[in-house]
Amino acid sequence: MDTTQRLADYLVGSRLEDIPAEVVREAKRSILNIVGCALGGAMHPAMEIAIATLGPYAGRPSAQVLGRGERFDPLLVSLLNGIGTHVEDYDDTMPGNYIHPSSPVASALFAYASANAVSGRDFLHAFILGVEVIARIGDATYPSYYAAGWHSTGSIGVFGAAAAIGRLLDLSPQRMTWALGMAATQSAGLREMFGSMAKAMHPGRSAQSGYISALLAGNDFTAGLHGLEGPRGFAAVQSPAYDLDRITARFGEDFGLLRNTYKPYPCGIVVHPTIDACIQLRDRHGLRPGAIESVELHVAPLVKDLCNKRELSTALESKFSIYHAAALGLGRGKAGIEDFGDDALADPVLRRLRDATQAVVDARIGEDAVRVKVLLIDGRTVEMLLAQSIGNLARPLSDRQLEQKFRDQSAVIAPAQAEAAIEACWNIDRLERVDSLIAHCVPAGD
Amino acid sequence: MDTTQRLADYLVGSRLEDIPAEVVREAKRSILNIVGCALGGAMHPAMEIAIATLGPYAGRPSAQVLGRGERFDPLLVSLLNGIGTHVEDYDDTMPGNYIHPSSPVASALFAYASANAVSGRDFLHAFILGVEVIARIGDATYPSYYAAGWHSTGSIGVFGAAAAIGRLLDLSPQRMTWALGMAATQSAGLREMFGSMAKAMHPGRSAQSGYISALLAGNDFTAGLHGLEGPRGFAAVQSPAYDLDRITARFGEDFGLLRNTYKPYPCGIVVHPTIDACIQLRDRHGLRPGAIESVELHVAPLVKDLCNKRELSTALESKFSIYHAAALGLGRGKAGIEDFGDDALADPVLRRLRDATQAVVDARIGEDAVRVKVLLIDGRTVEMLLAQSIGNLARPLSDRQLEQKFRDQSAVIAPAQAEAAIEACWNIDRLERVDSLIAHCVPAGD
Repeated sequence: MDTTQRLADYLVGSRLEDIPAEVVREAKRSILNIVGCALGGAMHPAMEIAIATLGPYAGRPSAQVLGRGERFDPLLVSLLNGIGTHVEDYDDTMPGNYIHPSSPVASALFAYASANAVSGRDFLHAFILGVEVIARIGDATYPSYYAAGWHSTGSIGVFGAAAAIGRLLDLSPQRMTWALGMAATQSAGLREMFGSMAKAMHPGRSAQSGYISALLAGNDFTAGLHGLEGPRGFAAVQSPAYDLDRITARFGEDFGLLRNTYKPYPCGIVVHPTIDACIQLRDRHGLRPGAIESVELHVAPLVKDLCNKRELSTALESKFSIYHAAALGLGRGKAGIEDFGDDALADPVLRRLRDATQAVVDARIGEDAVRVKVLLIDGRTVEMLLAQSIGNLARPLSDRQLEQKFRDQSAVIAPAQAEAAIEACWNIDRLERVDSLIAHCVPAGD
Repeated sequence: MDTTQRLADYLVGSRLEDIPAEVVREAKRSILNIVGCALGGAMHPAMEIAIATLGPYAGRPSAQVLGRGERFDPLLVSLLNGIGTHVEDYDDTMPGNYIHPSSPVASALFAYASANAVSGRDFLHAFILGVEVIARIGDATYPSYYAAGWHSTGSIGVFGAAAAIGRLLDLSPQRMTWALGMAATQSAGLREMFGSMAKAMHPGRSAQSGYISALLAGNDFTAGLHGLEGPRGFAAVQSPAYDLDRITARFGEDFGLLRNTYKPYPCGIVVHPTIDACIQLRDRHGLRPGAIESVELHVAPLVKDLCNKRELSTALESKFSIYHAAALGLGRGKAGIEDFGDDALADPVLRRLRDATQAVVDARIGEDAVRVKVLLIDGRTVEMLLAQSIGNLARPLSDRQLEQKFRDQSAVIAPAQAEAAIEACWNIDRLERVDSLIAHCVPAGD
């Protein structure tokens, strides 16, 4: 089994012309979505702290941070882009393995493309390949890997960043194999960090580690040749169970991007059905918060495993609270970035609704679904079973909805810049240099 | 169980005055040893590549790379120091868990102390605490963690670097807890990289990740509070078995530094008994290489698990070859840095001896021991059982031997500089600023 070498061979030999049009289209949707998320997260306190802390150590300011005025060396920018794109938990998700693939890949690519001349076609191709590597390793190790506690967006994302940058560097198969090995040996990220800023560090550090891996390998810094499949390699060491064949099966025929989804709400994806259903119940029955006595949710086991936070001490924790999700849907009828902030935590209406909500694990409920039962103070009960949450593969956000999501997050730039950036994402394969897209994402005045 | 918080409390509350004199003495021996290793590894190709690759991205050159002329930002220097101190596999080892603790800790500390004013006492104290954190987490997870394939020098070393820098930054208990959490979520490093340059990246990247963890935590970048013991934390996710009590037991009474050892040979520690025994046999019987028909080694199971490399394609692989170890002992009667280079690989005498050597696993043989049986061409057999290898806890290198080891590796600096550096290590607690020691380690003319 030479999984790593076979993967490297594929990455080096792939041609954009051979990639199906629907994959290219989904890549553009992913890029549009992740650039929007970069804008939405650009001013988060985690970004402010990371920049204030690490900026003084930065090298020559040849690269632009997405959505901000600062320029740093591209390695630091890759880390900062990763924090910014992921910190609101609004980025894309592959429901097949719960990885957010675009953050680690695009964060590295935009940093590289800001400091170097990269055509839109090369960028798009590298992005598709980076996501593909993540999808394959993610699928090969899911569910045991994620269940063990790894935050695979970080710990598997690093392979995607290495592959994408390695492709732009035109690495040979041997060097690409080393780059993947170096990625394996920097693979890190624990779910214990959920609800803290460290979660957003995961794709950031992975983008940077993957970038460094490709640079070093390109200069013949050697690594083991069996980083993925070796007896002491990534799969054997980190994943309780795995199927290495899924990493190398059907190259060029099957593309993980076609199973990527975009969040309608900036929070853990497994609470989306609850928000969706609660909004629908509120609208359908004209529910006022004060009329609600209690709420009972029937959810898939993973939901309570991931999002059982009832006592919320930080705003980031509210993104992983099934109770806050129900409270928002019923109490506000919406769940935007502003509904997961300190004000929302302190809102007495939401607090009462969180306290009035129970979540019951029901193995018959899918992770896309929820059953919600609301007992009203007047004794009536209203309920619904939601089978497919908005934003999932069966009910994907439309191109227009993705554009609106982008605009909703683009307050840091002028409306005309946002429209230009949206256009540039849809037409990225026609850009002579990707830094023209990045330029639209610099706050006016900076 | 608040393991992480209790560890943070200890780190914040520790006072150098309360640390036993023998621990301080061993810390100085460890520092002398690791500075010598930094000199010995400073010009290794892995260092040259890392500097050529990452130097262009470095920030303000406020810190000195140990043993070299270049100055970079201290975060990059911490990574480079880690590569240099570990790349020859000549650094210290705790035989209780096979971790090389000084590389990740000292690499971060020397980078920090080069860019900032740090007294020798504060440096020494931070070093002792950093090693202590590694020893405790290492002991709490050994042997299952290492056996699973983690290179704990990297994946546990990161905690030591975070603790040491966190101490110099005077972090509060809360922030130290975050720093340890951030270290947990950057914990990485696979044994699959043994024999390649990526192995030396492990303590380097860990030094840098720990350094960054402490900086970020110091500015209130939040992390999970249960990085070590949480249900999705380091121990549960990464270690098949563990005893968290060992991390917090007998603070201030038991010190891992007292179980640290220093290598007489620059290679995997488990092949040391074989080198030692083969040198003794050669000397005792006046063996010439040409007189040897075949060699049979009886070794502990871990030896073949780690060092079963017979076909050597790179010089670094020879450091993990039980066959090369026997060939050196019998063929050259020594094993210095130069005996693990390309010339040694190509040496036909050594090649024949490697091919003539068999290694048999024998569970009754300890990891400090070996049984060697040499069949001579004249039909005679000579053999010996070595119970304790030189350099281990029962036969430690003396202070004078450590000084000689330092000198043997100090070709990059002038002899007078080496003597001044040795003096400064022995008297580090009297240095007003540690950068005076670092200055002795800059090649003359740079």
